[in-house]
Amino acid sequence: MKGPGMSTVLYDLAGAEPERRFSPFCWRIKLALAHKNLSFDTIAWRFTEKDVISFSGQGKVPVLVDSDKVIADSWAIATYLEDAYPQQPLLFGGDAGKALTLFVNSWADRSLARGLVPLLILDIFNHLHEKDQAYFRQTREKALGAPLEQIVLSRETKVKELRHLLEPLRGLLKTQNFVAGTAPAYADYAIFGFFQWARCISPLKLIESDDPIYQWRERLLDAFGGLARQAPGYDV
Amino acid sequence: MKGPGMSTVLYDLAGAEPERRFSPFCWRIKLALAHKNLSFDTIAWRFTEKDVISFSGQGKVPVLVDSDKVIADSWAIATYLEDAYPQQPLLFGGDAGKALTLFVNSWADRSLARGLVPLLILDIFNHLHEKDQAYFRQTREKALGAPLEQIVLSRETKVKELRHLLEPLRGLLKTQNFVAGTAPAYADYAIFGFFQWARCISPLKLIESDDPIYQWRERLLDAFGGLARQAPGYDV
Repeated sequence: MKGPGMSTVLYDLAGAEPERRFSPFCWRIKLALAHKNLSFDTIAWRFTEKDVISFSGQGKVPVLVDSDKVIADSWAIATYLEDAYPQQPLLFGGDAGKALTLFVNSWADRSLARGLVPLLILDIFNHLHEKDQAYFRQTREKALGAPLEQIVLSRETKVKELRHLLEPLRGLLKTQNFVAGTAPAYADYAIFGFFQWARCISPLKLIESDDPIYQWRERLLDAFGGLARQAPGYDV
Repeated sequence: MKGPGMSTVLYDLAGAEPERRFSPFCWRIKLALAHKNLSFDTIAWRFTEKDVISFSGQGKVPVLVDSDKVIADSWAIATYLEDAYPQQPLLFGGDAGKALTLFVNSWADRSLARGLVPLLILDIFNHLHEKDQAYFRQTREKALGAPLEQIVLSRETKVKELRHLLEPLRGLLKTQNFVAGTAPAYADYAIFGFFQWARCISPLKLIESDDPIYQWRERLLDAFGGLARQAPGYDV
C-alpha cells in the first residue's frame, strides 16, 4: 500500500498538443492502472526526449514511476502492477491467465500492429510535435523501407485486410463480451490500446458500426468513467 | 467417475488407411483426453458416413461418447471434459484461462487454418478414402471458389506467408515453453491440432528446424508418451 506523499507517475507519449496521448503501449497501462483502482499522474513526453527518461535505463515509454520503483515496457509494467497490487482486481487471472494473456499481447504486437501501421503512420506523423517529426520519419522509413507517403497508399485495400486479420477477435466476441471473458482485463487493454492509438490520431473508420468489435470498443471507451473516450481523438 | 463397463469413445476422421487420423479438431480432443488421464477408444469415421453419427444431431467429428453423454464440436467437448473431470489436470486454468483459451482457439480456427488450407487441401484430398473424395472436392471447391489444384499453386509464397502469420506464436515461445505457460494445456492443443493435421497428410516442411515453433511442436509430439508422434504421418 502506498502511504501519503507517495505517487504514481506515467511518462506518456504526446503529440504536438500536450493532451494528444496516442501511444498504444501507454494506453494499455493507463487502463491497467485504472483497473487496479490506482490514481496516477501522467507526464507528456515526446520521442526525442530521451534524456528525460534516461533514469529508466532505456529510451521508450511507457515508463512508470511508482513511489521508488521505476519500470519500463508495457508487459513488464503490467506484471509489476499485478504483483505489487494483488489485492486489487486481477489483470491476468492467475498463472494460466497470464501466460495466455501474453499470447493475446503477442498477437496485438505482431499481427494487429502490422495491419495498422500502414494505415496510420502518416496520420501519426502529422500529429507529432515538430521536434519529433524528423526523428520519426527517419526511424520509421528506415524500418519500413519506404517513404511514409508511400506506405499509406491503397488504404481501402488495407482496411479490408485489417478487417480480415481481426477475424479471431470478431469470432470470440460472438460468445463473450470481452477477450478476458465477462469483464475486461489486460488481454482487452493489450488489443484496445491499438484501437485507441488509431482513434487518437486518425479520422479513418477502421471498423463498421455493426461489427461486434465496434461494440467491444465502445464498452472499453466507456470503461473507468470514460477514461479513453474523453481523450482527444476522432469520433469514428 | 466412470464405473466398470462405462466407456469413452471418440469418432475420429480417417483417410483411406483407417489409421491415418488427420482431423485438427479430433487431435485437439485426443490430446485433451490424454491431458485428463482418460483412457478412450477411437472409431475411424469418414466424411460421408453422416448416418453413423446422426445420433449426435449433426454431421461432423469430433463426436465424443462418454458413458451416456454425447457431445459434438471440439470446443464443446473440451468444455465438457473440464466440467466433468475437474479433479484431473485443468485444460483451461479457471474462468480467465477459459475465456483467453477461446481467443487462442479462435485465432487457430480463423487465422492459422486459413493460412494452412491453401497449402494442404490437395494433400488431404489425396489421402482420403475413395468414397469421400467427390464429397470433399465438391464442398471445398464450392467454399473456396476454385479447383483444389488451383488453390495449392504458389506454395513457396504461401509457406512464407504462413511463417509470417505465425509470428505471434513465435514471439510468445521466446519467453515460455507452451502457449499455456510452463506446461501444455488446451490452448496448445488448439493450435497443435493444425500442425498435426499437416503432419498426418503432407510432406511439406512448414517450419524450419531452428524456429521456436518447431521445438514447441516437438515437445507436443512427445507429450503423453508420444501420442501424436506415433500417428501415421510425415516426419517433417
